[in-house]
Amino acid sequence: MSLLKLGIPKGSLEEATIDLFAQAGWRITAHSRNYFPAIDDPDIRCSLLRAQEMARYVERGTLDLGLTGLDWILEAEADVEQICTLTYSKASNRPSRWVLVVPEHSKIRSVADLQGCKIATELVGFTRRYLAERGIEAEVEFSWGATEAKAVEGLVDAVVEITETGSTIRAHGLRIVEDLLVTDTRLIANRAAMRDPARRARIEQIALMLQAALTARHKVALKCNVPAERLDAVVALLPSLHAPTVSHLYDRQWLALETVVNADQVRDLIPRLCAAGAEGILEYEIRKMV
Amino acid sequence: MSLLKLGIPKGSLEEATIDLFAQAGWRITAHSRNYFPAIDDPDIRCSLLRAQEMARYVERGTLDLGLTGLDWILEAEADVEQICTLTYSKASNRPSRWVLVVPEHSKIRSVADLQGCKIATELVGFTRRYLAERGIEAEVEFSWGATEAKAVEGLVDAVVEITETGSTIRAHGLRIVEDLLVTDTRLIANRAAMRDPARRARIEQIALMLQAALTARHKVALKCNVPAERLDAVVALLPSLHAPTVSHLYDRQWLALETVVNADQVRDLIPRLCAAGAEGILEYEIRKMV
Amino acid sequence: MSLLKLGIPKGSLEEATIDLFAQAGWRITAHSRNYFPAIDDPDIRCSLLRAQEMARYVERGTLDLGLTGLDWILEAEADVEQICTLTYSKASNRPSRWVLVVPEHSKIRSVADLQGCKIATELVGFTRRYLAERGIEAEVEFSWGATEAKAVEGLVDAVVEITETGSTIRAHGLRIVEDLLVTDTRLIANRAAMRDPARRARIEQIALMLQAALTARHKVALKCNVPAERLDAVVALLPSLHAPTVSHLYDRQWLALETVVNADQVRDLIPRLCAAGAEGILEYEIRKMV
Amino acid sequence: MSLLKLGIPKGSLEEATIDLFAQAGWRITAHSRNYFPAIDDPDIRCSLLRAQEMARYVERGTLDLGLTGLDWILEAEADVEQICTLTYSKASNRPSRWVLVVPEHSKIRSVADLQGCKIATELVGFTRRYLAERGIEAEVEFSWGATEAKAVEGLVDAVVEITETGSTIRAHGLRIVEDLLVTDTRLIANRAAMRDPARRARIEQIALMLQAALTARHKVALKCNVPAERLDAVVALLPSLHAPTVSHLYDRQWLALETVVNADQVRDLIPRLCAAGAEGILEYEIRKMV
Amino acid sequence: MSLLKLGIPKGSLEEATIDLFAQAGWRITAHSRNYFPAIDDPDIRCSLLRAQEMARYVERGTLDLGLTGLDWILEAEADVEQICTLTYSKASNRPSRWVLVVPEHSKIRSVADLQGCKIATELVGFTRRYLAERGIEAEVEFSWGATEAKAVEGLVDAVVEITETGSTIRAHGLRIVEDLLVTDTRLIANRAAMRDPARRARIEQIALMLQAALTARHKVALKCNVPAERLDAVVALLPSLHAPTVSHLYDRQWLALETVVNADQVRDLIPRLCAAGAEGILEYEIRKMV
Amino acid sequence: MSLLKLGIPKGSLEEATIDLFAQAGWRITAHSRNYFPAIDDPDIRCSLLRAQEMARYVERGTLDLGLTGLDWILEAEADVEQICTLTYSKASNRPSRWVLVVPEHSKIRSVADLQGCKIATELVGFTRRYLAERGIEAEVEFSWGATEAKAVEGLVDAVVEITETGSTIRAHGLRIVEDLLVTDTRLIANRAAMRDPARRARIEQIALMLQAALTARHKVALKCNVPAERLDAVVALLPSLHAPTVSHLYDRQWLALETVVNADQVRDLIPRLCAAGAEGILEYEIRKMV
Repeated sequence: MSLLKLGIPKGSLEEATIDLFAQAGWRITAHSRNYFPAIDDPDIRCSLLRAQEMARYVERGTLDLGLTGLDWILEAEADVEQICTLTYSKASNRPSRWVLVVPEHSKIRSVADLQGCKIATELVGFTRRYLAERGIEAEVEFSWGATEAKAVEGLVDAVVEITETGSTIRAHGLRIVEDLLVTDTRLIANRAAMRDPARRARIEQIALMLQAALTARHKVALKCNVPAERLDAVVALLPSLHAPTVSHLYDRQWLALETVVNADQVRDLIPRLCAAGAEGILEYEIRKMV
Repeated sequence: MSLLKLGIPKGSLEEATIDLFAQAGWRITAHSRNYFPAIDDPDIRCSLLRAQEMARYVERGTLDLGLTGLDWILEAEADVEQICTLTYSKASNRPSRWVLVVPEHSKIRSVADLQGCKIATELVGFTRRYLAERGIEAEVEFSWGATEAKAVEGLVDAVVEITETGSTIRAHGLRIVEDLLVTDTRLIANRAAMRDPARRARIEQIALMLQAALTARHKVALKCNVPAERLDAVVALLPSLHAPTVSHLYDRQWLALETVVNADQVRDLIPRLCAAGAEGILEYEIRKMV
Repeated sequence: MSLLKLGIPKGSLEEATIDLFAQAGWRITAHSRNYFPAIDDPDIRCSLLRAQEMARYVERGTLDLGLTGLDWILEAEADVEQICTLTYSKASNRPSRWVLVVPEHSKIRSVADLQGCKIATELVGFTRRYLAERGIEAEVEFSWGATEAKAVEGLVDAVVEITETGSTIRAHGLRIVEDLLVTDTRLIANRAAMRDPARRARIEQIALMLQAALTARHKVALKCNVPAERLDAVVALLPSLHAPTVSHLYDRQWLALETVVNADQVRDLIPRLCAAGAEGILEYEIRKMV
Repeated sequence: MSLLKLGIPKGSLEEATIDLFAQAGWRITAHSRNYFPAIDDPDIRCSLLRAQEMARYVERGTLDLGLTGLDWILEAEADVEQICTLTYSKASNRPSRWVLVVPEHSKIRSVADLQGCKIATELVGFTRRYLAERGIEAEVEFSWGATEAKAVEGLVDAVVEITETGSTIRAHGLRIVEDLLVTDTRLIANRAAMRDPARRARIEQIALMLQAALTARHKVALKCNVPAERLDAVVALLPSLHAPTVSHLYDRQWLALETVVNADQVRDLIPRLCAAGAEGILEYEIRKMV
Repeated sequence: MSLLKLGIPKGSLEEATIDLFAQAGWRITAHSRNYFPAIDDPDIRCSLLRAQEMARYVERGTLDLGLTGLDWILEAEADVEQICTLTYSKASNRPSRWVLVVPEHSKIRSVADLQGCKIATELVGFTRRYLAERGIEAEVEFSWGATEAKAVEGLVDAVVEITETGSTIRAHGLRIVEDLLVTDTRLIANRAAMRDPARRARIEQIALMLQAALTARHKVALKCNVPAERLDAVVALLPSLHAPTVSHLYDRQWLALETVVNADQVRDLIPRLCAAGAEGILEYEIRKMV
Repeated sequence: MSLLKLGIPKGSLEEATIDLFAQAGWRITAHSRNYFPAIDDPDIRCSLLRAQEMARYVERGTLDLGLTGLDWILEAEADVEQICTLTYSKASNRPSRWVLVVPEHSKIRSVADLQGCKIATELVGFTRRYLAERGIEAEVEFSWGATEAKAVEGLVDAVVEITETGSTIRAHGLRIVEDLLVTDTRLIANRAAMRDPARRARIEQIALMLQAALTARHKVALKCNVPAERLDAVVALLPSLHAPTVSHLYDRQWLALETVVNADQVRDLIPRLCAAGAEGILEYEIRKMV
């Protein structure tokens, strides 16, 4: 089989992506000033590429597989296969979204008010199509960054910018008019690669392991001991009747239960388990879950 | 139910406290220049406050619950309920203590020798009461910090300062006369809040989970395989006859044992387990233990 | 029993060694400018010493036990007992080796071409003996560092230097002629200490626990649930028929399997387990394995 | 003559104070964990002390001379001699001031509205006297820091806090009601020391040199060449008719002028000098000016 | 007069530009997340903008004055007035240039070989015009960065990239075919602003002071004393007969000479001055020179 | 003329040496992992070498010129020409010295007591000769570092180590018996190079400029204005009657004086100049003084 060509997003997602692959079972080692990080799998070749350009290269087949944002897939209008969504940004729990932003006292109250306006954004193609689909004629120009400043200073009437909480936008005396696009990270594959059984199997393996790693981040294993006569009462508290493993203790009047639960349920579950007679409750981290 | 108002100590304990809550199941996110960190529990509201002021605000009911040192509870003479002691300082294994410190060649050999002396300390109230109870009259003045320097330079006759190992004190050419107070971190609650069943339940849940996290830091899970005929001999080596879980291996001549032991016993226990015929010995970290 | 005198290598291996002992069950606390780190075991006394000098002191009995490289054991021609090899360097997976290095366009093509040459190295004794054994006469001089520069500038004809990947050597326009010595870290003991039963037992305990920690770094525990009728098919996929623990789920149509596998096999094993009907697959870290 | 005892403020002013003394001609070397920095003048002994405590120790004669804020002199009601004001804070050009701060929507509009209120501040004594002089009864309590948070959370009705630009206060949703005290750094001396001629001379020397260094920070030397016939026209542009030095160039048709001007005038002065026929204009930094 | 609107380049040139204005006599204070830095001149308003966009905004009159690279002026085809060149990049003494880069073993040997090729660059417009003027048809696509990687991996046939020394390019196994554009930093002004006498005067003042600061960076003042009879011999060594100032020493047999020379001539000049009988030679830094 | 080969000491002196050359008029640019820093003088070639090895390479003629410590010149017994001493270490004002160090309670009270002892040091050759000259037989062994630890632990009877203040030595419970060698940095040249007139001239130029830079670090220029009738009184206060330059002010009743003084005299001189009627006193930094 030929090498599987995998694209890793360079920049803000780079470190988090490498951490995720490490948990999933692949060790990627990036060196400064080198665009081809090493990976401990002889069947894969890694490239570091900007998220903005990933979809284009996956579409052409320069890459078989890559990670990038939905926003940049849409911006490139790339014809690629979206394998799955992978949520591993760490800064906050809120989704990233591209929003239409205007000065606080602007008359613009909705997208419809943009008729005849000038707009700056890094997401030029998507914004133009978004407006055209709504019958709005406006001038959309590319911005290399510091986009909010152009709205503050009146260089343009509005900007389309990405944000999580909106706090930077408000701190500049700007106002969010509406959301244009909620975006997240996607694993994307080249369509021809997905028709090749060998490469498809490898892609699905990678998708499975990345998802197993992400799932495990929100789960923990919980164990406890219960007197045999309270088994049913304790199992009834657990989220799944099916999953718990049951073993005997050396003292055979007692049983040991083991199951997986959501990490954020534990703080409520443990007091209930105690009340139901469980003892020796233990919580473990897990690294993968399928 | 109204919100539970929780106080987190700002400063030297802040990061360790946030780590402890994370392990216990609550994610607290502090932002710089913001005194109200976010917490992922809609029933709790967090405030960052100096440890020195915590007890006063819990007493008044401004907070329902808080973490602070025994020293500052006593300094404030606050009427609060002490729920439990939480030991999670990382620097050393020795307790923190407030000590009476004098220059190496001072004539002061005991607290009794302080009669008529001048003393500098940040713990003014406690020190005054401590001396008054022993019938000693001395001038105790508040120090904003750099307290040892005042003893070094002869600005005062003695200082009362906090220390773990005493090494900084000795490095300044000073001598510890005696310990006045051994202190540790306490979880404290407002008395009225403890009489309200809903808030009391929440407070007890938090106490239970914080203690479960701390207990787990000194424990590990140990597993091993034993031939069926050696089961009793191996179990006899374990600290508890009650706890070990017993399962079969696929090869049913062998049994699998699983138990929890103190982390610092493992280095002595494993050689004995090997000698008794155990194989496949594994050690796991645990995150909570009740 | 007298104290066991243990030598920790100062410098590049220091932090990794302390981490390894922590995982093995001993907490070592090094203070800056102090050569005797604290250890939480009253029977052991730690010293920080340069790896170059470790073997000499273990030979003399100044230390009972120490960690150092095979290169420095050979350089010192020290008569010590090598207990075991410990591989815990983190930078790469390749072994460290002392290589003969010359300028790219040098006529030297093999060790035999060194006749009459001048060579700089930090490993003077080993290099001299290596050449003498091959009947080559050459001048070998001690170098305090920046050894490659001497070959670049023509101060010497060749240098003997340590490397992992050789990339620094090539970046200076130099060429590796051949490997003289592949080295790794060894746990070494004084021969007299090994004849004293009490000290021998302690040394073997330490060796056992250090190896248990290192083994665990490449292993993970894997669990999964299988329908009873598929048990044999799933077990056949696992690397060992002997090891898996088998328990029942609460729903007794299902069995739970638990075993230990190499961490780098998991990414291939999980898809096969899924295909064979396993569910609820979990991966756990382990801290020790014997 | 006995040693002159000099107090340097520990903390936020420490580095700027040491830089100022270096420019003035004294090299002070502070070591961590040492309260007595070295100084290259055998007649002076330095101590590091908190600014809050400086005035008290100068008053008692423990120190002959010290630097601290006017705020802490007033807070301590210390009877000391104020030698001069020294403005060398670097963050902004605005003075520091203690302000009365309330929540944005508070009904308090002036100090008079504080009747019966609770106020938190680190400047307790000054604030109590300030209110008493205006006939206002209010409860003023000591705050260990994070003072603004107490107004935000409603623990108190108002706080008295120090600020330069007020931006942190506004960022917390608070409002400045009025300024209570504009403060700056003062060089203060013990009254008895000033009556001793030897110490008074030393103190005046230090004051002179510190002021010479500060003055030089806002001045530059300016030189230019002018044809002899334009001398009067060019001198007329300079701020002082008295000061410029006049020399001949080797070509004696030309004269060289040299003078000192404010650094921020140069950008306007140079174009005028050019227009008046000056050439070879040079600007130099100066390190002291008396 | 209305405010002069000045654009400061955001990013890699930002800190060096602010340092240059400080030396020239204007203090600019940039705050993070703020696009409008403060300046201590009430007649000027500063904006931080990307160098890529500066020329466009100066052309439109949104700004009166700005600093940006010649490359971005040409890329934007902006009709602006170039006031002067300002060389203040610190990394090396070599000019920045946009170069045509291909893989080492590519057949492309000159721009003429690009016929029918695919080229990636951030400087799309300039590159297209450059090729069109030479009658070459090629596909030029925009690159967001990591441009070299595209040539390495064969995504394109060539890239056009900026470099100083070319070392990064060679380190990637690439080859420079030829230079397309040598670029430097320019002070540019809006054409209408230059027709307004008040704004023109301000712009010329700023240009004069920036150039005075840059000139001074390569010059030093040199002084020496000479016996009167050697004056002519010493003056003959100096680069200019006109400039040296001549004064008398207190001992009137001696004269003092003062002049300005290039900083890098001093090391050769001083030995010659000594040989010619000069004494008391001093070198001073200067901050501005017109 | 052939290139002058200059050796720069790698390691602790490296940055200070490069700063000194910059002030002297040569810009040296060191790149990481490169032993041949660039220099802006086509007649010089720089190498970075360990101070320990510098003298050996200057002796052989591999280098024409180098900077290293007197200790390493003596250790190597190198036959080189010492051009001048250069004092530019920044840590303290005290000289570095190699001292004989023993445990606090050792019976060794002088070098004579070393008869039959074991000594560890990095300066083996010098120490052996030092003892031999005094008729003392002792075993001196090479130490790679952490030398003090060997005395602490009793591995040797004494160590010979370098120190400035002795504080680290005392902090380890050790005692200095006596000084063996006071060392400083020397500029050394190859003897053959000094016989070649062209290279000798270059070497003397470099020595002159380095000394000019170091001298200027302890000097400042001082200017003041005096009424003509007070000229002699003011000149009498200055350290040299010869040097001051005298010019007229525009107001010819006043004279301007200019001279160079030691930087640490200024704080005492300025008050006396004021008292004698001087005005407009200014202090300037200087960069070179011959």
